[in-house]
Amino acid sequence: MTNYLAIDAGGTSTRAVFLSARGECLGYGISGGGNPVSRGFEGAIDSLLAASEKALGGIGNRFHSVTLGMAGASLELPTHLFQQRFITLGLAHEVLIESDLLAAFYSGTYQDNGYALIAGTGAVAARVTDSRLAAVADGTGWLLGDDGAGFWLGSQVVRAVAAALDGRGAPTALTGLVLAELDITLDPGVRTQGRVGAQQQLIVKIYELAPIELSRFAPLVFAVRDDAVAADIIERSADALAQTLGAVIEAGTPGTLVFGGSVLTKGGAVAAAVTARLADKLGAASGPEAAVPVLVHDGVVGAAVLALKRDGVEVDAAVFGRITESLAALRD
Amino acid sequence: MTNYLAIDAGGTSTRAVFLSARGECLGYGISGGGNPVSRGFEGAIDSLLAASEKALGGIGNRFHSVTLGMAGASLELPTHLFQQRFITLGLAHEVLIESDLLAAFYSGTYQDNGYALIAGTGAVAARVTDSRLAAVADGTGWLLGDDGAGFWLGSQVVRAVAAALDGRGAPTALTGLVLAELDITLDPGVRTQGRVGAQQQLIVKIYELAPIELSRFAPLVFAVRDDAVAADIIERSADALAQTLGAVIEAGTPGTLVFGGSVLTKGGAVAAAVTARLADKLGAASGPEAAVPVLVHDGVVGAAVLALKRDGVEVDAAVFGRITESLAALRD
Repeated sequence: MTNYLAIDAGGTSTRAVFLSARGECLGYGISGGGNPVSRGFEGAIDSLLAASEKALGGIGNRFHSVTLGMAGASLELPTHLFQQRFITLGLAHEVLIESDLLAAFYSGTYQDNGYALIAGTGAVAARVTDSRLAAVADGTGWLLGDDGAGFWLGSQVVRAVAAALDGRGAPTALTGLVLAELDITLDPGVRTQGRVGAQQQLIVKIYELAPIELSRFAPLVFAVRDDAVAADIIERSADALAQTLGAVIEAGTPGTLVFGGSVLTKGGAVAAAVTARLADKLGAASGPEAAVPVLVHDGVVGAAVLALKRDGVEVDAAVFGRITESLAALRD
Repeated sequence: MTNYLAIDAGGTSTRAVFLSARGECLGYGISGGGNPVSRGFEGAIDSLLAASEKALGGIGNRFHSVTLGMAGASLELPTHLFQQRFITLGLAHEVLIESDLLAAFYSGTYQDNGYALIAGTGAVAARVTDSRLAAVADGTGWLLGDDGAGFWLGSQVVRAVAAALDGRGAPTALTGLVLAELDITLDPGVRTQGRVGAQQQLIVKIYELAPIELSRFAPLVFAVRDDAVAADIIERSADALAQTLGAVIEAGTPGTLVFGGSVLTKGGAVAAAVTARLADKLGAASGPEAAVPVLVHDGVVGAAVLALKRDGVEVDAAVFGRITESLAALRD
């Protein structure tokens, strides 16, 4: 029986699963961030190896290949260094690097055609055709795009609060939440050299953060009720994510629709708004029933699916069901 | 006859003028950036002293006070250190720190009430009442606001290009200009792992820049003609700047309107659009004629005006005219 090691290397955590060709998950391990862009190469490889060791446990390390789903598989990263390191350690004869986007897609389906929209800190959409990424939209990072996702939402929240404080924008309940989060006392009457005191404190505290940390304010937009400013930010997030997914949808090319990332999987209001905006386009592409997205929480199932598929193993509904069920049991 | 030294300390250059109580400018000097936030304290003081020495020339350094207009006079900067250093060097008995915003306002008028809107890399508006900053809006920096100004414009330009490249946004002539600026060859047919090649190069090159450098793409939005995407960015810039100025306008409080910063002073399309949007509000505040803004290019005239006013010298039309004319002669 051939076994495989499949790894989903994310920015904040790394998940590894050891599985058989039948789709039985035999071991599972989790560790810290495995993205070489944010962790550096050595930090990333440490995380990959730590998760792998846990997944292999006492089972031994006889397996056919390592399949590694990671961000930047399409970028100019030194992915060959990961291959060399795994092979040097005697961990595998073969290391396959796959896009984390494809791993996320296959966490929701075993079929080889369809669409994925992932909106966590960043936002990216893909069309999958014959098991390959045929088109990718956005995923361009916080400075160039990632429109509608976590950084974007957090940034819109603090900008709306800055504008509300000096009267450029409408008053919003977000102001109280953001100021409380940053331990700023709101005393709108006090001005120093014309500037509202709370805004001055907001400026000082926001610029102490790394820009990407603004994503921590994203959840606040979902925490207020009956607030026109928050509702407008959520609407524009859904508009942007629909634009991103819409850019990869091809008329007459049906397939499964997979949604991932906390902006889409937590709550569901944004996910529903995105599919509503694309109802016609999704209907044309996939038939009306396909407009109901499959939600995925990470890419480890998809990394496992890819491990089997890339070795020529057929993954059907039974194998896919075996992977998800046996993995769920290991995760409990 | 009492003389004064007045300094306008900007982010990229510092201007100093040595003048008499009658408003005669006797010497003028220019040097590098004098903002302690971007240059550090020692770098800033070096620039201030270099510009001052040129302004004083062989005239000697007998003068009443130094008036220093600088960003951050309302912020938590160690402005007292500037005072100590000038006094230690025997350059003045008194050092007055004034907001660069007030210096910009007084570069356009000798009157003590009115409004200023400055849109360079950042955007900020102020209401001046009885020679003091009564209200300030925006000026919150690139991450929190500065809506409609240089960084904002450049950022909107590159985001529009990133979106046009993967089909999220409409095609735009800005794409060719941005790619040429970054030496990227446009070959939209080529995709790697689903991503358009030119977009991949754009991502790499943009993230090599410091975020604030995106302002270098701002002029491109004014360089294209009959482009709906560029026109929309300019419209939204004018909307944002009108919102910022509108936030400080008080009904029944008339006064001069002063515009500064390259977004407002170069070309004039944005300035005209801002005043058109605020015609009613400006009419209510200042009478219709006041909706024609005075354009200023820096804050050195205003620093000179403040030097006299703060020492109790009356600055009327004759004195103001003498300052601007004698300074223009020195600058030639």
